[in-house]
Amino acid sequence: MSTTLIKGGTVVSATGRVLADVLVDGESIVAVLAPGSTSLGHDLAATVDRVIDATGKYVIPGGVDAHTHMQLPFGGTSASDTFETGTKAAAWGGTTSIIDFAVQRTGEKVQDGLAEWHGLANGECFVDYGFHQIIGGADADALAYLPRLVDEGVTSFKMFMAYPGVFHSDDAQILKAMQVSADTGLMTMMHAENGPVIDVIAEQLVAQGKTDPYYHGIARVWQAEEEATHRAIMLGNITGAPLYVVHVSAKQALAQIATARDGGQNVFAETCPQYLYMSLEEHLGATSEEWGAFEGAKYVCSTPVRSREEQHQDAMWNGLRTNDLQMVSTDHCPFCMKDQKELGLGDFRAIPNGIGSVEHRMDLLYQGVVTGEITLERWVELTSTTPARMFGMYGRKGVIQPGADADIVVYDPNGHTSIGVGKTHHMNMDHSAWEGFEVDGHVDVVLSRGTVLVEDGEFHGKKGHGSFLKRGLSQYLI
Amino acid sequence: MSTTLIKGGTVVSATGRVLADVLVDGESIVAVLAPGSTSLGHDLAATVDRVIDATGKYVIPGGVDAHTHMQLPFGGTSASDTFETGTKAAAWGGTTSIIDFAVQRTGEKVQDGLAEWHGLANGECFVDYGFHQIIGGADADALAYLPRLVDEGVTSFKMFMAYPGVFHSDDAQILKAMQVSADTGLMTMMHAENGPVIDVIAEQLVAQGKTDPYYHGIARVWQAEEEATHRAIMLGNITGAPLYVVHVSAKQALAQIATARDGGQNVFAETCPQYLYMSLEEHLGATSEEWGAFEGAKYVCSTPVRSREEQHQDAMWNGLRTNDLQMVSTDHCPFCMKDQKELGLGDFRAIPNGIGSVEHRMDLLYQGVVTGEITLERWVELTSTTPARMFGMYGRKGVIQPGADADIVVYDPNGHTSIGVGKTHHMNMDHSAWEGFEVDGHVDVVLSRGTVLVEDGEFHGKKGHGSFLKRGLSQYLI
Amino acid sequence: MSTTLIKGGTVVSATGRVLADVLVDGESIVAVLAPGSTSLGHDLAATVDRVIDATGKYVIPGGVDAHTHMQLPFGGTSASDTFETGTKAAAWGGTTSIIDFAVQRTGEKVQDGLAEWHGLANGECFVDYGFHQIIGGADADALAYLPRLVDEGVTSFKMFMAYPGVFHSDDAQILKAMQVSADTGLMTMMHAENGPVIDVIAEQLVAQGKTDPYYHGIARVWQAEEEATHRAIMLGNITGAPLYVVHVSAKQALAQIATARDGGQNVFAETCPQYLYMSLEEHLGATSEEWGAFEGAKYVCSTPVRSREEQHQDAMWNGLRTNDLQMVSTDHCPFCMKDQKELGLGDFRAIPNGIGSVEHRMDLLYQGVVTGEITLERWVELTSTTPARMFGMYGRKGVIQPGADADIVVYDPNGHTSIGVGKTHHMNMDHSAWEGFEVDGHVDVVLSRGTVLVEDGEFHGKKGHGSFLKRGLSQYLI
Amino acid sequence: MSTTLIKGGTVVSATGRVLADVLVDGESIVAVLAPGSTSLGHDLAATVDRVIDATGKYVIPGGVDAHTHMQLPFGGTSASDTFETGTKAAAWGGTTSIIDFAVQRTGEKVQDGLAEWHGLANGECFVDYGFHQIIGGADADALAYLPRLVDEGVTSFKMFMAYPGVFHSDDAQILKAMQVSADTGLMTMMHAENGPVIDVIAEQLVAQGKTDPYYHGIARVWQAEEEATHRAIMLGNITGAPLYVVHVSAKQALAQIATARDGGQNVFAETCPQYLYMSLEEHLGATSEEWGAFEGAKYVCSTPVRSREEQHQDAMWNGLRTNDLQMVSTDHCPFCMKDQKELGLGDFRAIPNGIGSVEHRMDLLYQGVVTGEITLERWVELTSTTPARMFGMYGRKGVIQPGADADIVVYDPNGHTSIGVGKTHHMNMDHSAWEGFEVDGHVDVVLSRGTVLVEDGEFHGKKGHGSFLKRGLSQYLI
Repeated sequence: MSTTLIKGGTVVSATGRVLADVLVDGESIVAVLAPGSTSLGHDLAATVDRVIDATGKYVIPGGVDAHTHMQLPFGGTSASDTFETGTKAAAWGGTTSIIDFAVQRTGEKVQDGLAEWHGLANGECFVDYGFHQIIGGADADALAYLPRLVDEGVTSFKMFMAYPGVFHSDDAQILKAMQVSADTGLMTMMHAENGPVIDVIAEQLVAQGKTDPYYHGIARVWQAEEEATHRAIMLGNITGAPLYVVHVSAKQALAQIATARDGGQNVFAETCPQYLYMSLEEHLGATSEEWGAFEGAKYVCSTPVRSREEQHQDAMWNGLRTNDLQMVSTDHCPFCMKDQKELGLGDFRAIPNGIGSVEHRMDLLYQGVVTGEITLERWVELTSTTPARMFGMYGRKGVIQPGADADIVVYDPNGHTSIGVGKTHHMNMDHSAWEGFEVDGHVDVVLSRGTVLVEDGEFHGKKGHGSFLKRGLSQYLI
Repeated sequence: MSTTLIKGGTVVSATGRVLADVLVDGESIVAVLAPGSTSLGHDLAATVDRVIDATGKYVIPGGVDAHTHMQLPFGGTSASDTFETGTKAAAWGGTTSIIDFAVQRTGEKVQDGLAEWHGLANGECFVDYGFHQIIGGADADALAYLPRLVDEGVTSFKMFMAYPGVFHSDDAQILKAMQVSADTGLMTMMHAENGPVIDVIAEQLVAQGKTDPYYHGIARVWQAEEEATHRAIMLGNITGAPLYVVHVSAKQALAQIATARDGGQNVFAETCPQYLYMSLEEHLGATSEEWGAFEGAKYVCSTPVRSREEQHQDAMWNGLRTNDLQMVSTDHCPFCMKDQKELGLGDFRAIPNGIGSVEHRMDLLYQGVVTGEITLERWVELTSTTPARMFGMYGRKGVIQPGADADIVVYDPNGHTSIGVGKTHHMNMDHSAWEGFEVDGHVDVVLSRGTVLVEDGEFHGKKGHGSFLKRGLSQYLI
Repeated sequence: MSTTLIKGGTVVSATGRVLADVLVDGESIVAVLAPGSTSLGHDLAATVDRVIDATGKYVIPGGVDAHTHMQLPFGGTSASDTFETGTKAAAWGGTTSIIDFAVQRTGEKVQDGLAEWHGLANGECFVDYGFHQIIGGADADALAYLPRLVDEGVTSFKMFMAYPGVFHSDDAQILKAMQVSADTGLMTMMHAENGPVIDVIAEQLVAQGKTDPYYHGIARVWQAEEEATHRAIMLGNITGAPLYVVHVSAKQALAQIATARDGGQNVFAETCPQYLYMSLEEHLGATSEEWGAFEGAKYVCSTPVRSREEQHQDAMWNGLRTNDLQMVSTDHCPFCMKDQKELGLGDFRAIPNGIGSVEHRMDLLYQGVVTGEITLERWVELTSTTPARMFGMYGRKGVIQPGADADIVVYDPNGHTSIGVGKTHHMNMDHSAWEGFEVDGHVDVVLSRGTVLVEDGEFHGKKGHGSFLKRGLSQYLI
Repeated sequence: MSTTLIKGGTVVSATGRVLADVLVDGESIVAVLAPGSTSLGHDLAATVDRVIDATGKYVIPGGVDAHTHMQLPFGGTSASDTFETGTKAAAWGGTTSIIDFAVQRTGEKVQDGLAEWHGLANGECFVDYGFHQIIGGADADALAYLPRLVDEGVTSFKMFMAYPGVFHSDDAQILKAMQVSADTGLMTMMHAENGPVIDVIAEQLVAQGKTDPYYHGIARVWQAEEEATHRAIMLGNITGAPLYVVHVSAKQALAQIATARDGGQNVFAETCPQYLYMSLEEHLGATSEEWGAFEGAKYVCSTPVRSREEQHQDAMWNGLRTNDLQMVSTDHCPFCMKDQKELGLGDFRAIPNGIGSVEHRMDLLYQGVVTGEITLERWVELTSTTPARMFGMYGRKGVIQPGADADIVVYDPNGHTSIGVGKTHHMNMDHSAWEGFEVDGHVDVVLSRGTVLVEDGEFHGKKGHGSFLKRGLSQYLI
């Protein structure tokens, strides 16, 4: 096997930074060493197969995006990134692990859904991938199968309090699934929005002729998110299940999470870049010459981007600092405007929900370091270390230490990244919700299990390099 | 310089654990390596000067006790441990850094107090030591001098809302000092109890003939701690000063801290082992044949140990899990019963306040791992990593990584420690408040900057080995 | 018409007490006068038809019990009190108005349910009665009919978050009904327990052989009440509907209500005597020679009586003092043990839910005055003034003032009442849940619209005297 | 004695309204009667000495202003209204009772201060007056004298956490005084601002040349009010003393009060009209041609009027609705611009603190009824009923009922009041802070103990009519 020395960089962890060299042997990190140390009796740089100079740059564990939806069937179409295109874009952006969602629908068997997703991803990926399991129909069979997910390395399942008739679970179903979660250690993930309530409001808005994408945000009131979040917490409280709330965007929902966490309950939560940077007024309400008021469709996702006047965005940043939000995922679920988002012309309810961000998460969060919202260490913790711990991959992922997979990003704080179609865009979309965002940093080198995927602006990865991540139970419980 | 390889152990950090070898060269760690790796081209174990076998044991960064009071003058006597005896006991217990308190009293110059404490400690210590600065008289001179503490490497100062006439600062003084704290980055530490209120209650109790040690706890009502904690937080809110609340023991005070932290304010707090394990009913109210109702004097400290019925102890453990309490210090301030605690026979107000724990903190907290209160990683974080980050020493202390001081403890989870005089007791006290506590783990080997202090139950350290820690600003601000 | 002077008593209102005479002419109060005043030019006592001496006693507005279920069909049987027996018992106990519940079930028309209940009560009652409307099936017809309830004088409707398959409404239905509530001013009343969750737990308990009445309380976890209460509040927040939560028993649910009220939302709540005096341990877990462990069936009601160790009872009293609970109703829903409660032998789920208290509410709450839990004025406010204001009857009911119906109780603080079958029991039950309760006060005289119903321990009322109360909108909104 | 019948009006109480006639005999109300009732056997209107037609108008209990400072010595000058001019202005505005503050200063005897204030008021007042006692120096003598205040009918005392060196009490003094409060039932009133902190900030602002009145508001940060409020609550919690917080203006302070009240503690609070209507930006920062930036001096009071952007005013209105604020007083403390406010030209700290409002409170609050902030009943409760209950005068004051003093206001909802110098201004000030405020209502007739003071825009009162109100203990404790 070949050896690589990443030399002269500042290795950043969740707790601090240090000037150190990182030695890679084959797929793994084998040593972290004082730079230029002669303690080992010889000059490492001279003996390794390859030296990557990281002087003046950050050496960080590869990004872990714990929430993506490659080629997800949704609203009569499918997310536009395949595992191939999506994981390639992830790699370009410094994300070397994703956790995608296998889907079980009402009446289907869980194992069939999981098998189908294995089939979709296997041999297609440029970076490592794991699965969460969506439980869209928590019937007796599904509940009985859940414990076996632990052996499958799929140690988390997601339920929906939204989307009645599609993915929605009722409280009795959630309770039963959470009982399994408590018994097995499987993490319960929750889309916490009161869907039945939202659907009534949405229907009334459409009946009033309020059909533009903007009303997607009006319909999905913060109370629906706050309420469902609280409800999920209480169901977690009854059962003892660990709960992970996905894509938090309402400050009031965050407050519920903070209260539960203060009480010592195992409640965890992520937010996504769109909830940090985008707003109802600016984005959902956006217009353009090309699309008119339908421009906002680009920013239609659920939970929705929320009012800036109500300061939800500030609250999310604060939550990232206080650890009431432990991590940032993308909820990457890309749809093109053409033929996809267009489905909702005249009725916002038919717009496929989702934004594509898997490529930009590391950069967008780094910009929070530049603007002083978070520290450099917190950036690494939010984007890599905690996702790995939360979902049972730490040790292998999420950290630069001996024995870990050599998933490493060399990040240049003096570089620059301009986001946009025709610029740094590799996702399979005909637009970017992040068009025009500028980042004062740059992903320079990306290694996945010791293999260089990106270097000098060139892509060196190979389809199929990415392998399935059999995950353990969460390492983040309190 | 000599090299040491700590081999075969499980290196534990704040975020995880890994089987790894640690290579020490001279005073520093120079590499963390995959065990038995041949990537470096040769067998390290064969080339180093010394090999320590840590198989089956934890390899952790040496303990950092951020709150000790060696030979502190208090209540007409002095704490019974000198820097010599105290740091030796610390070493025995796996604590390789302490931060003690230099004292400035009303009318004195800060620099004189600091110089005096340098004089007391210099050449006496077995492990490294730093200083916080007590500001007992925040006059114009003292305020003017504060910023220079940064250059002295004394990057934190402590004020007292208790002890009127001794150390007490009024709100105007605290405000002014906190303004300096905000400007310079110096950490404001606070003894948060409303002393004037406590003193009235204590005086009334004594007037009623309630003079036993038990009434120390009755006088120091939780409201006095909650109130002062809230007040300190608000003064921090006005000024922007980072605030560190020492020795939290009341659940209501902790709730104030949690609220402030949820809001994103830089408020930090420690608790101490006595607030996790001891109670008003069992300890302050203890009686013995030898001492009668004065037995409780052994447990007189401020803030006091509190009612178990009111569940303060459970709340403290919970705070350690939720990170509303970030670390555990000892507030080590030992007094003998003979000639010292005895001063308060007949009037609890005259009992010197303090418990000696510097030797047992690592063990006592490890027992929390055994009983499931905290995780192994959290143990390391609470006792070493966060203290180092909080007080500007991380990188050098608090972590096993290249470049760090080789302050390392090999901890045996299969060992056992019986605490008590004549057993594992090295503190200069005629009793132990921890008499009879049993711990299901054992400090096996202790290194301080590469030098073995403890091994095979023998002490190998030398007085004067410990050197002054010039600290930077806190690395824990959000 | 005849005139009556109630002379020499202490008239108690929600805000204070005063020595005053009350002049009744026909069905109404026409004057409240300084005692023995000669200002009117003549001696009133000499000119009226009748004088009632209230010297040394309290003269209070007749009790208003806003939550009764006479002859309610439930669980395959019907509540054992008819409108005749129930209103007679009410009168005996100083309650001169009740608000009962007309029932609409899924698939039925609201107007039919209302008409049916009019039919049941008309001509049967001894005291005045009004109706709330239960909406058990919030379909389009029902929603369309709701606004007409205002004209019917039925200005409140109740929905159930419990009892799936019986009365349960889902969130979409509740939202739509609440929109009507907000538009019309109709009060939304809510049984706030998460029924689907409770049913799962209950089913699991029964499957484990835990079938005694005690497990009724174990199944109905406080989280189910807290959760539903919070959810109802959020739905009220979205719609702007005034919300009234019935039979609050969990301290955590009360805390949710308090928070909403602090924020200025129109959220109101009652508790019931059983939640003030009874507990899971003592009552639901009661055993007797006759009934064995099934004795607890007497205390089966929903929400359940809760753990005293968890201090729910203290919290309810506190809520009554702080006005986070505004009033006390009975939720009177009596079932005999024989043939009724017995249905649940072997399966607590089949025990008809309900306790009979309509006769004892005034006494039981007065005992709270005796024990210092509430003030005399608060007693009147909780049992009469606020219920009248809350449900649009104030002016006519709930107050001693000119123009009001002469519903008056003379209450003797020096009297005594022993509750129990064969003692003061007039409800149609073969037992009393209140057996053995002793009250240091006594209902002496009861007038309903000027007619004496009770005096000198004799009953003088006539069936059919009680007439339907056409109520206005709530007079208690903020 | 002469009799008066107030006929045809709507009598408004704290709980409701009713068409009723009110019969006055001499100084007292003797009956409240159904309008035009013939039940008494004759036509009252024909037999009384005088009939006041209140048709179409509200008949309410005379206003009770529980917080005035007539001729208070402050900052080297004295409040410009004497008891004569101030109580006359009060009468004009429908306020028929005031509670002023007798002053004890450090080193003085309480009884001397009280006697001095009796001397100032005796024979000078147009309406009834009571006293609270200011304790400016809580020494042993003062504490010993406190219980005797109960017999003096001065059942409340006020302490200051602000104004170090003038009125300020430290926490030990407050604790001791509160212990007396708890023992005797005397109400502890508190000016809750952290004065020492404010004085530091104010001094620093002046040192920076920030001397305009605007900086009065900048110096008195909300944290200083929130902190002191919380501290006072905790001292009340320790002692069990009932606590009344004066002139609340910060929403965060209000939140502390709400929390304490939810917990059942006897904590009460008032706000003042200026905190409902005025703001830092509009008023403290006001400029005019005549006064330039010193115009803001008219609005200098403590606590200060606060930022509208931070929505403190909305929070105060909300608090009035939720009963977290129980009443509205004026803190009437008038100073002329000329020779008085002018003292602070060049240094806002020297501006006498105070606004004159005693004349306008009833009108200003009625405007809140017009705009929908509060109900008509709540208006009466906030301005009369609760102040009377809170301070032990209910039954005599605060209610229209037999036996009460005939302090009655006929208020015309169809009238109009323009506030301003040369318009409706009778206070002894050369300006009005309320200049230009328009009120959609009008004080028509004012009676004090049966004597008409104001009618048809004419003043009929006589100096010396007002007599001292010997008050009982609070009737509002929970």
